[in-house]
Amino acid sequence: MNSFGRKFKISIFGESHGKSVGVTIDGCPPGIKLDEADFLSDLDRRKSGAKGTTPRQETDLPEIISGVFNGFSTGAPITIIFKNEDTRSKDYSKLKEHPRPGHADFTAFKKYNGFNDYRGGGHFSARLTLALVSAGVVAKKLISPIDIRAQLISVHGNSNIEQAIDDAISKGESVGAIVECIASNLPVGLGEPFFDSVESVISHLVFAIPAIKGIEFGSGFKAAQMYGSEHNDLILDESGKTSSNHAAGINGGITNGNEIVFRIAVKPTSSISKAQETFNLKTGKLEQLMIGGRHDVCVALRVPVILEAVTAIALADFFLISGLNHLTNT
Amino acid sequence: MNSFGRKFKISIFGESHGKSVGVTIDGCPPGIKLDEADFLSDLDRRKSGAKGTTPRQETDLPEIISGVFNGFSTGAPITIIFKNEDTRSKDYSKLKEHPRPGHADFTAFKKYNGFNDYRGGGHFSARLTLALVSAGVVAKKLISPIDIRAQLISVHGNSNIEQAIDDAISKGESVGAIVECIASNLPVGLGEPFFDSVESVISHLVFAIPAIKGIEFGSGFKAAQMYGSEHNDLILDESGKTSSNHAAGINGGITNGNEIVFRIAVKPTSSISKAQETFNLKTGKLEQLMIGGRHDVCVALRVPVILEAVTAIALADFFLISGLNHLTNT
Amino acid sequence: MNSFGRKFKISIFGESHGKSVGVTIDGCPPGIKLDEADFLSDLDRRKSGAKGTTPRQETDLPEIISGVFNGFSTGAPITIIFKNEDTRSKDYSKLKEHPRPGHADFTAFKKYNGFNDYRGGGHFSARLTLALVSAGVVAKKLISPIDIRAQLISVHGNSNIEQAIDDAISKGESVGAIVECIASNLPVGLGEPFFDSVESVISHLVFAIPAIKGIEFGSGFKAAQMYGSEHNDLILDESGKTSSNHAAGINGGITNGNEIVFRIAVKPTSSISKAQETFNLKTGKLEQLMIGGRHDVCVALRVPVILEAVTAIALADFFLISGLNHLTNT
Amino acid sequence: MNSFGRKFKISIFGESHGKSVGVTIDGCPPGIKLDEADFLSDLDRRKSGAKGTTPRQETDLPEIISGVFNGFSTGAPITIIFKNEDTRSKDYSKLKEHPRPGHADFTAFKKYNGFNDYRGGGHFSARLTLALVSAGVVAKKLISPIDIRAQLISVHGNSNIEQAIDDAISKGESVGAIVECIASNLPVGLGEPFFDSVESVISHLVFAIPAIKGIEFGSGFKAAQMYGSEHNDLILDESGKTSSNHAAGINGGITNGNEIVFRIAVKPTSSISKAQETFNLKTGKLEQLMIGGRHDVCVALRVPVILEAVTAIALADFFLISGLNHLTNT
Repeated sequence: MNSFGRKFKISIFGESHGKSVGVTIDGCPPGIKLDEADFLSDLDRRKSGAKGTTPRQETDLPEIISGVFNGFSTGAPITIIFKNEDTRSKDYSKLKEHPRPGHADFTAFKKYNGFNDYRGGGHFSARLTLALVSAGVVAKKLISPIDIRAQLISVHGNSNIEQAIDDAISKGESVGAIVECIASNLPVGLGEPFFDSVESVISHLVFAIPAIKGIEFGSGFKAAQMYGSEHNDLILDESGKTSSNHAAGINGGITNGNEIVFRIAVKPTSSISKAQETFNLKTGKLEQLMIGGRHDVCVALRVPVILEAVTAIALADFFLISGLNHLTNT
Repeated sequence: MNSFGRKFKISIFGESHGKSVGVTIDGCPPGIKLDEADFLSDLDRRKSGAKGTTPRQETDLPEIISGVFNGFSTGAPITIIFKNEDTRSKDYSKLKEHPRPGHADFTAFKKYNGFNDYRGGGHFSARLTLALVSAGVVAKKLISPIDIRAQLISVHGNSNIEQAIDDAISKGESVGAIVECIASNLPVGLGEPFFDSVESVISHLVFAIPAIKGIEFGSGFKAAQMYGSEHNDLILDESGKTSSNHAAGINGGITNGNEIVFRIAVKPTSSISKAQETFNLKTGKLEQLMIGGRHDVCVALRVPVILEAVTAIALADFFLISGLNHLTNT
Repeated sequence: MNSFGRKFKISIFGESHGKSVGVTIDGCPPGIKLDEADFLSDLDRRKSGAKGTTPRQETDLPEIISGVFNGFSTGAPITIIFKNEDTRSKDYSKLKEHPRPGHADFTAFKKYNGFNDYRGGGHFSARLTLALVSAGVVAKKLISPIDIRAQLISVHGNSNIEQAIDDAISKGESVGAIVECIASNLPVGLGEPFFDSVESVISHLVFAIPAIKGIEFGSGFKAAQMYGSEHNDLILDESGKTSSNHAAGINGGITNGNEIVFRIAVKPTSSISKAQETFNLKTGKLEQLMIGGRHDVCVALRVPVILEAVTAIALADFFLISGLNHLTNT
Repeated sequence: MNSFGRKFKISIFGESHGKSVGVTIDGCPPGIKLDEADFLSDLDRRKSGAKGTTPRQETDLPEIISGVFNGFSTGAPITIIFKNEDTRSKDYSKLKEHPRPGHADFTAFKKYNGFNDYRGGGHFSARLTLALVSAGVVAKKLISPIDIRAQLISVHGNSNIEQAIDDAISKGESVGAIVECIASNLPVGLGEPFFDSVESVISHLVFAIPAIKGIEFGSGFKAAQMYGSEHNDLILDESGKTSSNHAAGINGGITNGNEIVFRIAVKPTSSISKAQETFNLKTGKLEQLMIGGRHDVCVALRVPVILEAVTAIALADFFLISGLNHLTNT
């Protein structure tokens, strides 16, 4: 389903070339200061325009159509929509027959018996991440003073990010990247054993972001090469502070008060300027496909703010489930 | 919560040193051939006793107490319990004050205000994976002819697994490992965009297994170092078969008919024979802790069958949500 | 929460005097013919203007902003919004202090710590039933050929409805009523034992409609005065047809193929033209309150189409949960 | 599904003639004093043996197999099972072909393709209400000091209950009844608008009890005959106390601090001593059926404690959702 959360529950909707994309946040407590200007900074970080991102120009102005009154959340569902403006549908008519490699064109066509909106990827478009970022803005306010920061740490295996982008542009290629996210100032006790472990819920939401191929917490894949005596984080005091943080701030699925740290792998953008082959569903033959339009060279450039958003959404849900809220917390 | 799934819904319960651990499976369709003997093979793969695993001896005989009649599932909830027999509670009394590094002792104590059953980790015990494996046995039958196979591919960075285990034993250490899982013979169309992507649901369940630190699908973390033209899997025919499988059989969160492939990182067992320091919650001082009892040198040795189980559970849920069931499928 | 359903899942949002009210329907299968004109007939039945309903004039034109492409549902979430136009906020400023008897003003104020949008009842407004009726239109299409019909059977205890309305108008009063709903052409097997019985899910949704005080299925409260031999419906043939229908087409929570029949009690509209006393939250005194604005004399006049809608929503969810859909059904 | 609740979540399982029936309660906070003796009083009220109830003798001793340690809830799932002892399966073999009027035999057979356990109604047996009563015992402790009392107010339309029972016994009949439930000492603010109104959730659970045909809150069906000025409950003070209680303590789906009052209609027991006709699924003919075994003359005699239980379960869930718990509450 297109919704997530038990108490801080978000539902997303919309298509790349439909009328709007948007999100409804149900379960947000009353009394959170909120207006449309609060969204602009995070939306701007997600926005197109930077080197290596598509020049599609959207104003991306959020419109809050419910749930906020006199500048505060009311406790009723908050719905935020973004009108689609720069929709060049003619660019996409070919996709009906030519599923683009790496995209959801083929799977969507099969799953929805050909009724899916294929224009610009339709509902599968990364444009839906506007909804995630918006919900993240509300979640961040709710979980304050928890602080969440994500950043690109390498592109195409290179920590000199600008150089890697230039190289890809010059080759008509796209490139993958690694993004790291750190949440700090956490209470002990968020999360639950087994199915609602902090790692379970964060990874669930992280893989809702298009193009993610892997996630690792704390020591991550390096843990597979470590001894137990190296890996164990020694508890130093009553607050739960540990000597190292291989556990990524989580034991038994529950926050231990140390930082939550995780990294994700972002694949290279599937749309590239080079010619590719694909199967033509109509002719039944392999054919060459040139993907027109304008696309991100490195979709990961937009990912940090989205990653912060889904992490905040996960923590907001745990926060409320635990009976905490921003009023009692501050 | 201790339940998961929308249509194939599992709820687990129990503690390491309580009366029983068990699972209820709600939503399993009627007509699946099922008796207690069907569980033994997978339970045996999970069982203690192998070199590198703890010699705790449990008979681990499943008792089906509801939902099966005349050898077939009835459509009513299936509850399976395992009586706990070899419970040496005296070994664990010290844990009340000495939270073991790497375990949930500290977080459970804080989250549950000291009311948690701390004996052997209580509800956080890996013994609860009996419940997961059992649910997996039912799920595997349901999703037939989908085939799921997981195996250890390296221990402590070494593909010579036996040698790595021997090394760890000789050092009084524990070691981490990598496990790979492959699901084949899949229909196109399982999974949903965004929150219920196949990756989201599988990773959610995978991180419900204790000791997992990372997961990567298909190209995984290597994708971060690839170009788009390398990464894209070309579609070759109408069935969706692709030339390569960097996407791990999933596009836009939905199965494309190719194999689902993923790998997970398992941390070294937290319980080790060496002395460790930890904070004593009663005295307020750092103290040396020797963990008695008998423990796995490499917990990952038990993980493949658990990993298969949770993958089967995830696919069974998608399967039923899609309106498929084992009768229409076969 | 403001959402309902497991597979046909609806989420409603909006306030009486906010920008919009609306609904998102998640889980609707692809291929259902759908455009905005399809909603007009049911929306018209709900609309204000009839004798005994408030003259508030809303155009109530639905705008489908996602999930429909080329005239068919796509399988992605369908969001439908209604802009609020005739909002006279000044009428309502007094409500901040004077909770109206019979309304949610007091409970909303307390629950949301005074942050609720109190204008016209805010999120508690019956205007939100636009969202229910719209979801009902989609649900009715999905469950075709099941047919659902609801009608007023008495007003103020009188089957001469017009006379009862005239009497109430002349007295400055409002009046209650009974509405009956019948669903026919049902398959055997919708619903589940215990928590998801057909009666459970229908009544859950029925009590989501404002002003409902009771529901009874089949023999209803008369069953309390019957003998078993009178009440039992004898099964006549293999299709499950019964000699009588005291069971309302449901045994053990599951449809038996006969008609689902139920009746609901609707209370008199809480807003009346007469002066009433209420507690002033600011002055701490009982004061006289005159409710301005224009209000329904008998809110039940609008209820039949809403009752059909929620019944259709309940059945649509059961329909999809059972693995049926409109394509396989027709 | 066989589970209910968002934070106080119960899952029930078992069959009349299987090994056990039981319940898992997930989400119960730690620190609630709980042992097996606590269940006996409510279980005894539900028990067979009273005049007008079946003489089937079950010891009905609850066994807590998880979630309780040292006499207190731990925060982990609480599972309680009841072994079935007095199971005379031979009595029921005929039911495979002869669906009993008023029972779920026919619908279960169709829904589960003949795989259902038909012995004594299988999973549809009223024996599953043991699970509801047990969960109710825990819920009542959790919501203390809220007090819930249900009682029979009439049998077969007669407030002289004993006489009505004697009359039915003498005729070989069964009889219906009305039960009333009152919850007092409530906080303001439990429940939510629309789908999770207090009436929605209570009625959902009430219709999970077998044999219920109707429910009405406060003024109930009489509201349909009232004027608004009669029905409105005037608010008298800051606590929300009202002059009358037609609203049953609920406005806009949310508790207003006054008593929750509702009544339910219970149908006559479907199993009667008289001969009845039914359709034989094997011979395809109408045949006479004599239901052997021993049955309740008035199943409603057992209902009050079950009704209290489901009301407590509903309130416990609202209680926890609202961030309250028994420790902060007392």
